[in-house]
Amino acid sequence: MTDTQRVPWIAVVEDSDVDYLALSRAVKRSGLSVRLNRCADATQLDQLLDDMHGHTAPSFVLLDLNLPGIDGRQILRKLKTSELKHIPVVIYSTSDDESDISYCYSHYANAYHVKPFEFTEMCELVERILSYWLDVPTWGSVA
Amino acid sequence: MTDTQRVPWIAVVEDSDVDYLALSRAVKRSGLSVRLNRCADATQLDQLLDDMHGHTAPSFVLLDLNLPGIDGRQILRKLKTSELKHIPVVIYSTSDDESDISYCYSHYANAYHVKPFEFTEMCELVERILSYWLDVPTWGSVA
Repeated sequence: MTDTQRVPWIAVVEDSDVDYLALSRAVKRSGLSVRLNRCADATQLDQLLDDMHGHTAPSFVLLDLNLPGIDGRQILRKLKTSELKHIPVVIYSTSDDESDISYCYSHYANAYHVKPFEFTEMCELVERILSYWLDVPTWGSVA
Repeated sequence: MTDTQRVPWIAVVEDSDVDYLALSRAVKRSGLSVRLNRCADATQLDQLLDDMHGHTAPSFVLLDLNLPGIDGRQILRKLKTSELKHIPVVIYSTSDDESDISYCYSHYANAYHVKPFEFTEMCELVERILSYWLDVPTWGSVA
């Protein structure tokens, strides 16, 4: 972030309370200064991004794939064909299915990560994802 | 890489001999096991990717923006609308211009990094880019 007054934040699309709690703990353990905004489904993400006018865009969207209703694949397609397509979308899913990975990269996911089951391993991965993507150049607020 | 027999490789699009030499030294210093395939322009990249049939795809394309002839922006657009659009494209440019950054993300660059001028800082960045992107799941060979 070039503007130190801005607190970086991540839009986390995650329907599972258990997975979100584990993620929050991993983020806290990383010691990185970042705010998480959770969306449990596509509607909440739309609302969050619609309300963003005048505020800083999220550093990235951390997107689960298997969601009730509109799933992560559809959210990805919609985001990457919208005026917000410049926002990085990082997939964070339990699926290690090659067809999911290929699908997401072909629909312009910026990166794809498989959620580890083991908490220590998860903490390591979350720290790597955050420390990388929070350093990627950003573009100020999205009009 | 899940297949230990495969040596990961990066397609590096870089016209400057000096910049490529510095990059090679930074990669060597990182100690990471990776092969670089240099392309000095768009034609050489096309040739490299055309000759890929039956071989493993690059882990990612490391793309300079300002190139003679067909520039990096055009290469990005072409790659991300081709059958190879699933291959991550990481921009590595001297430009820190917000319009370049925004343009590249809007045309589906997976990540954008500004080349540091100082060698030690460059080594740190190159190690971060490589250690992140070489760990991202891949999809085997591209048919």
